[in-house]
Amino acid sequence: MRVLVVHGPNLNLLGSRETAVYGQKTLAEINAGLMVLAQELGIELSAFQTNNEGEMVDRVHAAMGEVDAMLINPAAFTHTSVALRDALLATAIPFVEVHLSNIHGREEFRRTSLLADIAAGVIVGFGPDSYALGLRALANRLEA
Amino acid sequence: MRVLVVHGPNLNLLGSRETAVYGQKTLAEINAGLMVLAQELGIELSAFQTNNEGEMVDRVHAAMGEVDAMLINPAAFTHTSVALRDALLATAIPFVEVHLSNIHGREEFRRTSLLADIAAGVIVGFGPDSYALGLRALANRLEA
Amino acid sequence: MRVLVVHGPNLNLLGSRETAVYGQKTLAEINAGLMVLAQELGIELSAFQTNNEGEMVDRVHAAMGEVDAMLINPAAFTHTSVALRDALLATAIPFVEVHLSNIHGREEFRRTSLLADIAAGVIVGFGPDSYALGLRALANRLEA
Amino acid sequence: MRVLVVHGPNLNLLGSRETAVYGQKTLAEINAGLMVLAQELGIELSAFQTNNEGEMVDRVHAAMGEVDAMLINPAAFTHTSVALRDALLATAIPFVEVHLSNIHGREEFRRTSLLADIAAGVIVGFGPDSYALGLRALANRLEA
Amino acid sequence: MRVLVVHGPNLNLLGSRETAVYGQKTLAEINAGLMVLAQELGIELSAFQTNNEGEMVDRVHAAMGEVDAMLINPAAFTHTSVALRDALLATAIPFVEVHLSNIHGREEFRRTSLLADIAAGVIVGFGPDSYALGLRALANRLEA
Amino acid sequence: MRVLVVHGPNLNLLGSRETAVYGQKTLAEINAGLMVLAQELGIELSAFQTNNEGEMVDRVHAAMGEVDAMLINPAAFTHTSVALRDALLATAIPFVEVHLSNIHGREEFRRTSLLADIAAGVIVGFGPDSYALGLRALANRLEA
Amino acid sequence: MRVLVVHGPNLNLLGSRETAVYGQKTLAEINAGLMVLAQELGIELSAFQTNNEGEMVDRVHAAMGEVDAMLINPAAFTHTSVALRDALLATAIPFVEVHLSNIHGREEFRRTSLLADIAAGVIVGFGPDSYALGLRALANRLEA
Amino acid sequence: MRVLVVHGPNLNLLGSRETAVYGQKTLAEINAGLMVLAQELGIELSAFQTNNEGEMVDRVHAAMGEVDAMLINPAAFTHTSVALRDALLATAIPFVEVHLSNIHGREEFRRTSLLADIAAGVIVGFGPDSYALGLRALANRLEA
Amino acid sequence: MRVLVVHGPNLNLLGSRETAVYGQKTLAEINAGLMVLAQELGIELSAFQTNNEGEMVDRVHAAMGEVDAMLINPAAFTHTSVALRDALLATAIPFVEVHLSNIHGREEFRRTSLLADIAAGVIVGFGPDSYALGLRALANRLEA
Amino acid sequence: MRVLVVHGPNLNLLGSRETAVYGQKTLAEINAGLMVLAQELGIELSAFQTNNEGEMVDRVHAAMGEVDAMLINPAAFTHTSVALRDALLATAIPFVEVHLSNIHGREEFRRTSLLADIAAGVIVGFGPDSYALGLRALANRLEA
Amino acid sequence: MRVLVVHGPNLNLLGSRETAVYGQKTLAEINAGLMVLAQELGIELSAFQTNNEGEMVDRVHAAMGEVDAMLINPAAFTHTSVALRDALLATAIPFVEVHLSNIHGREEFRRTSLLADIAAGVIVGFGPDSYALGLRALANRLEA
Amino acid sequence: MRVLVVHGPNLNLLGSRETAVYGQKTLAEINAGLMVLAQELGIELSAFQTNNEGEMVDRVHAAMGEVDAMLINPAAFTHTSVALRDALLATAIPFVEVHLSNIHGREEFRRTSLLADIAAGVIVGFGPDSYALGLRALANRLEA
Repeated sequence: MRVLVVHGPNLNLLGSRETAVYGQKTLAEINAGLMVLAQELGIELSAFQTNNEGEMVDRVHAAMGEVDAMLINPAAFTHTSVALRDALLATAIPFVEVHLSNIHGREEFRRTSLLADIAAGVIVGFGPDSYALGLRALANRLEA
Repeated sequence: MRVLVVHGPNLNLLGSRETAVYGQKTLAEINAGLMVLAQELGIELSAFQTNNEGEMVDRVHAAMGEVDAMLINPAAFTHTSVALRDALLATAIPFVEVHLSNIHGREEFRRTSLLADIAAGVIVGFGPDSYALGLRALANRLEA
Repeated sequence: MRVLVVHGPNLNLLGSRETAVYGQKTLAEINAGLMVLAQELGIELSAFQTNNEGEMVDRVHAAMGEVDAMLINPAAFTHTSVALRDALLATAIPFVEVHLSNIHGREEFRRTSLLADIAAGVIVGFGPDSYALGLRALANRLEA
Repeated sequence: MRVLVVHGPNLNLLGSRETAVYGQKTLAEINAGLMVLAQELGIELSAFQTNNEGEMVDRVHAAMGEVDAMLINPAAFTHTSVALRDALLATAIPFVEVHLSNIHGREEFRRTSLLADIAAGVIVGFGPDSYALGLRALANRLEA
Repeated sequence: MRVLVVHGPNLNLLGSRETAVYGQKTLAEINAGLMVLAQELGIELSAFQTNNEGEMVDRVHAAMGEVDAMLINPAAFTHTSVALRDALLATAIPFVEVHLSNIHGREEFRRTSLLADIAAGVIVGFGPDSYALGLRALANRLEA
Repeated sequence: MRVLVVHGPNLNLLGSRETAVYGQKTLAEINAGLMVLAQELGIELSAFQTNNEGEMVDRVHAAMGEVDAMLINPAAFTHTSVALRDALLATAIPFVEVHLSNIHGREEFRRTSLLADIAAGVIVGFGPDSYALGLRALANRLEA
Repeated sequence: MRVLVVHGPNLNLLGSRETAVYGQKTLAEINAGLMVLAQELGIELSAFQTNNEGEMVDRVHAAMGEVDAMLINPAAFTHTSVALRDALLATAIPFVEVHLSNIHGREEFRRTSLLADIAAGVIVGFGPDSYALGLRALANRLEA
Repeated sequence: MRVLVVHGPNLNLLGSRETAVYGQKTLAEINAGLMVLAQELGIELSAFQTNNEGEMVDRVHAAMGEVDAMLINPAAFTHTSVALRDALLATAIPFVEVHLSNIHGREEFRRTSLLADIAAGVIVGFGPDSYALGLRALANRLEA
Repeated sequence: MRVLVVHGPNLNLLGSRETAVYGQKTLAEINAGLMVLAQELGIELSAFQTNNEGEMVDRVHAAMGEVDAMLINPAAFTHTSVALRDALLATAIPFVEVHLSNIHGREEFRRTSLLADIAAGVIVGFGPDSYALGLRALANRLEA
Repeated sequence: MRVLVVHGPNLNLLGSRETAVYGQKTLAEINAGLMVLAQELGIELSAFQTNNEGEMVDRVHAAMGEVDAMLINPAAFTHTSVALRDALLATAIPFVEVHLSNIHGREEFRRTSLLADIAAGVIVGFGPDSYALGLRALANRLEA
Repeated sequence: MRVLVVHGPNLNLLGSRETAVYGQKTLAEINAGLMVLAQELGIELSAFQTNNEGEMVDRVHAAMGEVDAMLINPAAFTHTSVALRDALLATAIPFVEVHLSNIHGREEFRRTSLLADIAAGVIVGFGPDSYALGLRALANRLEA
Repeated sequence: MRVLVVHGPNLNLLGSRETAVYGQKTLAEINAGLMVLAQELGIELSAFQTNNEGEMVDRVHAAMGEVDAMLINPAAFTHTSVALRDALLATAIPFVEVHLSNIHGREEFRRTSLLADIAAGVIVGFGPDSYALGLRALANRLEA
């Protein structure tokens, strides 16, 4: 089983900025941790980050036939990108939506998601552990 | 570490009704599975179900000093119970909110939660596995 | 054919309070009148009243396998109880929603119902006769 | 006691189109069935159908002094005709509003009625039986 | 293949009034131009205009079995007539909705259409050419 | 100077129904009173009443070249008729909108008018005198 | 019969500014014209202008017992002054609300009035003639 | 004069939790203080607390004929319980609504009350003193 | 302890107008009654009334250093005056907001307050007794 | 006459994914078909596709002086891109907006377009034929 | 070139209250600083402050012919005064709107301005420097 | 002190298109003018323009440690880019938001900004001078 992790805009800054909110771990450390867990679960993992909506759409397209599922932290695109929604609808690759912080307790506009209703599931608020829980959820789901 | 699992209204019917939506597992089976995982994670687990808002508030009150965290599937009370919100605010026991189905893809009124912004995190849409992921999230969180 | 009549909160006061709005008949008299009509229509009838949302959910659960249809006057729960909606969705017992007064001509919040779209039909505004008409509707519906 | 049945726009197509939704009965058959029930209840019945809002207003005007009550299925005019509302307010003939299908479970705009708050009562969702129940309700109401 | 063109309210004034907005062509000239194009495309064409909602509903009813498709410019009824929507749903004749002016650039209330979601397609803003494009679209659609 | 008075739906009932709200005068008496005032002001007056939106649109069309201004009480069509608005826009005959009762103090939906922003002026709440004041306003306006 | 004319904020600028919108007449000329008409109608007239909400409230209070009716052009206070509404409710002096321009065709916020529902009537859009028509309306009303 | 004090959900936790917001006093201490004040004012006082909506409705019903007035802190039910509103409407026992904290300065949903418009009066934001002021208000009101 | 009572617009009319709603007492009588109670509570009291927003803002400014607290009945300014809110924020003098009538049961726009969230507390609906209760609340608060 | 066809995000997947919704034709085939029609109509055609909002804005800029008109299927950018709107406003190249599917019958957020009001016209719902109709419309428009 | 600076309600308190938010400078110091800058820019400057809406309207009227432009900090009137808007529209003196604090980051109701759309420009959030920047902007604008 | 000027989408067209709205100056000329002013103020200035949201986010990231403040004209991204907001929150570089035209007087959707509440200040409507004023504001702010 192959899984692609897609990190959205500004996540490249993890660990160096706003550590009170997002924690001390860098994106590289999060990816490394996921690699270990993936191996344990028998998953072949790759990761991708971009600050560019068009590049994220392109990457989702390219994932067709290449992976069995995706783990996506759409960050700011959660609330603004119909293009990403359409890409996910078109490619129909199962995905889990994850968020580091509890978006329900932040600005009002972060409460609406353009992706959640077409996700397999949503995990919110556990910091980097949100990714790990999402990977387990995918593993369980594909085994079933 | 002690955790209380709180199941909200209508969850006593799991496994016998609407199995296409909610799966084949009964509530007893879900609880049993959680017990096994809890033991593995070194957690002391207890479970409670009610169809009655007042009883759920009473149970949360009683949990003070008794458990370290809660795993709550508030079901319908997610959208209507300010009393439950106040109980959770007053007792200040950390809790994770879980849902079996993807509430973002259902009726409009299921999209607003009176609890999510005060939860430690939210997990949505993985069937019974939502509970297991929530338990792991609590274990990771309390270890950290 | 077996039918359960479910009376919601405050209906136990019928006939003793606000008789200008709700009429002179007590709940006992309404139930008695329904029993006579039920016999005439070949229906086995039972009745239940509660002021407690959780008890009403429990009663609907218990009705599975016990009755063929329900006649429900949800009163105040019409506008607030997602739990009752979920119980009715889960048990899938056909039901008719009835109201004594014309709720369309009262406070704004009484104009939205959380139940009407999943009811077999709705009857509004005929005083105690709303129950009788609802019983006839169920009889005709089950004969067809 | 004299009652006028008023059928709104498109109801002349009953029985020939969309039979899955509206049933097999034609409007003529529904009227015939109502005639039988009316005789049984000692009611003098007449019926009228139009696809034209102005004609329906004219018919309601003409009914003053001619009938004691009306049974109205306003169909699409339920949601758009202030003129019909004004005609009903001006003539002050008691009327019951009926609908064949459960309008609460259809498009959003069918959930608002310009007439329901001034009706004696409303009956929704029992197919042709909605008319029969409405006629009984009028009979009971006028006897009382 | 037979097509009925239905022109809504006020379109009889075309060419004589507000020519800056709607162009110099009269309705007769538009119909004449459509006749030429229809012949070229092998379509048997008839046309109808009314300022009266009830007459338009009657005309749509009468079109059942008589034509294969309709080209409708509902004009003002686009935004107000649930009766016309119901007639189109009931008769199920495929239709294309056309508008002369770009309704998206006019008053707010012209932005909502009660018909567009059940149309085969919608063409907006090309003046009389909107009809010609709609006729071609029907021809292509029925050939396919 | 020629003026057409257009009376909308249900105004034919004036003087016989709801006299507490609309006064004792019949429509014939109102028209007679306006004729006297018109003569005094040197105006050639004609009057028209209909309960039918399509007929009102037709009458407005026919008024082009026939009259210099109109005095319109659109009644219920005030709030629902985009077709009437379009007819008034297309014919561009100056008109004054009048209402017998104070529509600002009635149901919420009577507070929005589809015509007022394209009227020369609006007069509300003086009973039959609203017409007389409107006629004077037109006379003054055309003299100026 | 005694009538007070109350002119709201910025009306002291009439005739010198924005003459394309509000006309060439100054406030003094309007008052002079009203005096002539008042004499003709047997009305004792006084006039008052202020740019200050508190002064307008004080003036309305002082008018109790002093005049029989008021003619008010509340200008900007139409949309913002609950204090003026309360003063008019408390003193219960009958008043007619007038506006020079057609407020229905201007900014959205000018469409809601805090006063219109408690006025005897409203006259909108006839320039200075709005006052004259309002004075006639008061004369007719008090004669009746 | 007899008065019943009704404490809503979560108030049993007073004095032990969130003391920064709700103060150091327990519910028992508040009740004791009210007893002293009641004696001074010649009032016979009883008190009741529940976390259960149905039990609160039952208690209000039972209060008919038993007490002359009620002092109610509905807590969370303020915003969600139509059933409690209906019970208060039906029993028609005069009541004063009190709140410990200033609900106007908290979450948005706490700003709407389903009870305030049918209360004799509302007192907000004085901590336990809100109850004492409410008791005085009832005493003054019943003396008058 | 020194307290300033501030009465908003139209309250100078108390006792002479709308006595059914606001009671028989004049403002002078209310002030006199408050003086007696103030003496009893050891409070130095002064009172002020204005119909003018600017004067009320000036008075609040002048109160800095002069009084320890304010008792404010903002009347109509409750709903419209951001300037008053800013004055209260800037001077930071503790104040209690009082209303004679139950504003929750009146027009919709009276339900929003621009001041309540920054008040120490709010008392609504007890007629002149609202002031007395507010004075007691201030006394208790400042003693504590 | 030169025309640029601009295809928005995800349209590169046409023909390979969601063929039930979008049809069997690939984007290359659609472009080829348009080339044939363009030749027939004497139009010089070029085509461009991107999943990137910034690239689409750049392409529109580059089109100034290069083409006479554009045929744009903005896909997801229809609902989210103010930047594209501004580019179209700034360059002022006439364009027709086309959509393959009937966006009026899909998710709510697809009903609002940021571009339609500045388009020459809009064509919705004919599959690949929408492009062909749009090209004809441009040809007719530029000939006129 | 002559410029009038208009300071709105509560700004007379600057420098003495809420210095954490509004800074240490008094209004006199701000005016003095502006005088120096005005001299440098060749501007003749005068300043005015009021807490009274009516006085501000009067001052704007008086400014006609007296100054070439205005620098206005409308403070609370930004959000409530249609009268001020009308005065600015009527006098047509160019003005720049300034705010000391960043109103976009404060209460929701401070986000809407009744004046900004008719201002020459708006400057927000630089403390007293907002005035200086506004003066420069006026100087540059009038030079151009 | 180092400042980066960031120009958003479509600003590369300045001076060549829509000169009536945006003025005659090209972006190069604006940058040149800012360079002169920067030198005068002792600021080290660099400038950047892009039509691509992802590139703007990347540029803001790269600015960390490189500049002391930013001057941003986000153009269309003002209203749509949560990603840009997140980048500005994460990097925490102080910035001033500027706009050439008065966005408050344009389309409704241009009235909401996703950035203004986290900006140091906002300057709107002075054409190219908006940049110059913003640069001065930054200079003053950093000196203070």
